[in-house]
Formats: sequence, structure tokens, C-alpha cells
Amino acid sequence: MIVHDSVPGHVGPPAPEFEAGFRDAFEQLLMWRRDVRHFLPDPISEPVIQRLIDLSCFAPSVGNSQPWRFVRVDGTQYREAVIADFTQANADALGEYSGEQAALYAQLKLAGLQQAPVHLAVFSDEHTKQGHRLGLKTMPEMLSYSTVAAVHTLWLAARAYGLGVGWVSILTPDRINHILDIPESWKLVAYLCIGYPCTQDLTPELERSGWEYRRLQSRIILRR
Amino acid sequence: MIVHDSVPGHVGPPAPEFEAGFRDAFEQLLMWRRDVRHFLPDPISEPVIQRLIDLSCFAPSVGNSQPWRFVRVDGTQYREAVIADFTQANADALGEYSGEQAALYAQLKLAGLQQAPVHLAVFSDEHTKQGHRLGLKTMPEMLSYSTVAAVHTLWLAARAYGLGVGWVSILTPDRINHILDIPESWKLVAYLCIGYPCTQDLTPELERSGWEYRRLQSRIILRR
Repeated sequence: MIVHDSVPGHVGPPAPEFEAGFRDAFEQLLMWRRDVRHFLPDPISEPVIQRLIDLSCFAPSVGNSQPWRFVRVDGTQYREAVIADFTQANADALGEYSGEQAALYAQLKLAGLQQAPVHLAVFSDEHTKQGHRLGLKTMPEMLSYSTVAAVHTLWLAARAYGLGVGWVSILTPDRINHILDIPESWKLVAYLCIGYPCTQDLTPELERSGWEYRRLQSRIILRR
Repeated sequence: MIVHDSVPGHVGPPAPEFEAGFRDAFEQLLMWRRDVRHFLPDPISEPVIQRLIDLSCFAPSVGNSQPWRFVRVDGTQYREAVIADFTQANADALGEYSGEQAALYAQLKLAGLQQAPVHLAVFSDEHTKQGHRLGLKTMPEMLSYSTVAAVHTLWLAARAYGLGVGWVSILTPDRINHILDIPESWKLVAYLCIGYPCTQDLTPELERSGWEYRRLQSRIILRR
């Protein structure tokens, strides 16, 4: 990374210029990021967890609203209630499929909730006054989108630390708010399992299992 | 970046291990990513634009659904109609503020639509069959969240190429679908302006203008 002198009129530290070597490594980071469901029991050091959350707060947010809120879920009674909600939601989802697809769905491992050393629920504060509602009038969903950007930042940063993240969406948001005693104005965006992965693979687990394959050719680019 | 031997039972190329030097540069990337509204007129080469879109397709997606769809908006008549919608939506939003805040809002430059060499609208195909609706029963918003992850990936990759991105949300989604003749089932997630930035700064423009400052201390971490 080269650090350049400031551009004319620019106040503050000089802007970095990212080189081809960094871009290559960043591409590797993108390619090797996986949704992880198989975790080693090894704990994650607290400074690393804090670092991931700090880095996630550099995500873009509408109006600089920073609506992301984090809930560390460690208590056994909380985790068991979350797992019970997942189990019920997963059984309900299985009921939507039939035949071979139902059999395949039943075999998928869709969450690492039992093994992951860290559970992190991420919410979007839909009533935040930070940002003064700028950019929300026609697209109020920008608040939760900002929180998604924070989650994705954390995910990439975790991979750079050799950690795996699994995003569990087979949960009932209202139930999770109730279980964790979270204000209604906080919207569940992501329930994350974080830990060291059992294996690393270039291919998504859902592709390896035969559920769905990737189409990376960015087929769908329209022109107007 | 060190490339390790495969872990036992792992088939495929060896997984990379990211080192402290990469993590430091990645942190710089996160810190120097800005929402850009002031662009130089310099064009972006087509291979770079295509590269950004290809990289964005490495984003995570629910059920491996890859719901992101891209629309390059180059035609003058289309751009003018989008700018007209922004102008109207921005005037409407201004009406929500009063006093000093209204004066400040009126001074903000909230989009680089006139100068940006590339306009890229990003939609989420809410009716896609890819992924077979896995993970959507209790959280259907996961499709648009996946598209947000693609947008954020593109944004970070653009910064690594020295490019700036501005996400314009002061637009009326239904109107944009109509202007660009996009199917109703494609939901507008982001309208992006992309180009080389006039200046680079560590501090968000909305903070420099006095609209809202950042709170990076990840204050809000609850424990359960």
C-alpha cells in the first residue's frame, strides 16, 4: 500500500492507494468467505470479537445514522430458547417442500447454533434519531440495509482473522426479540454464529450439498 | 498471504491465511471508503466496471439465491428522468425539516448524479426461484439483504481500485422501475453513482458538513 500526499485542498491524513497485491488478496477474501455451519469448539479471544464489532461500525449508513445494535448471546437459557425457535421454524420450512427436495432439505445442516462459541444477534434501531432521518423518506428500508452492510463488514473481517460466520435466517424475528428482551423498535437483521471453522472450502456448502449452485457470470446486466 | 496445505478431509485448493499486513490494509479500506458525491469527469474503463460487478457476485446470498440484478444507466433520457425524480424527492424531504436543520439540509450535496460517469441501479429479484426459497419463510427480507451485501462488496472493491461510490436513496423506487422499464418483481435496492472522486477524506461528508457525526465506540453492545 502506497500512502500518497494529500490532494490539493484536502485536509487530513494522506489517502492510501491500494495496489494490485492488495486487490488480489482482497479478491481471495471475497472468494473464501463462506456461510459456516460447522465450528470447532475453540473460543475466540475477547479483543478479536471487539475488533470485529469495531470494524463493522465503519460500514456505510444512511445519513450517518449507524443504526446497528449488537447483542452477545452467551446465557445457556437464551441460547436454548433461540435453538428451540430455529428447530420449530426449520420444521415449518421443511413442510413447504416435497419429494426429493424435502429429503434434501432435511439433510442440510442449516445452522451451527449448537457448536459456535459466539452468538451475536444484530439489530437495526428503526427509531434512531441519529442521522435525522436523512435519506429515509422514500426508502425507509435504508436503516436495515445499513445494518446489513455492518454485518457484511464483520463477516469479511472475521474471515481475515481466520474465523467463520454463519448467518441464520430460519428464526422468527418477533420471537427472538421476546426471548432476548429487546425493544420492539429494534428489528432483527441477522443472528450470527461465529467461530473457527472445521473446514475451509471455495465452494458454498449449499452447492456441495446439491441444493443450489452459483452463477458467477453476472449474467443479468441490463442496459438503459 | 500464506497459502496452507489443505486441512484433513478437505478437497480442493488450499485455503489462504490472511496476515496482519493484509488486515491492516483491509482496515484502511474500510476506513477510507466514503459515500462520494463529487466526481471527476474521467471515464472508468469497461473491464474495471465489469470486474466490480463480477466481484460483487461473491457476496453471500440466502439459499445461494444470488438475487442481485444490475442495470447500467447510460442513456441521457433515462438519466434525466432519474435526476428529475431525485430533485422532486429531495424537495419533498426538505419539507420535513425546519429552521436551521432545513437550511443545513438545503446546503447538502446529496448526490453526484450529474457528474458521475457511471450510473448503476441494483435490484433484488424478489421472485427468483434460485435458492428454492430456502431461508425466506420467516425472513423474506433476506433476498434484498443479499443484494445489499453485493452492493457493499462492489463499494469496497471500487475503493480498492481508487474509485468512489455514492448510494442515492432519495429516489422513489416505483418511479425508478417505471423510468427504467424494470419488472415489478425487481425491487430497487440501490442507485449507485460511480467515478473517480474529486477528493478523498477519512471523515464522512455528512460529518464535515455538520449534519451528523460518527460514534465509532460500538457503544451499544448488550449481553444476554
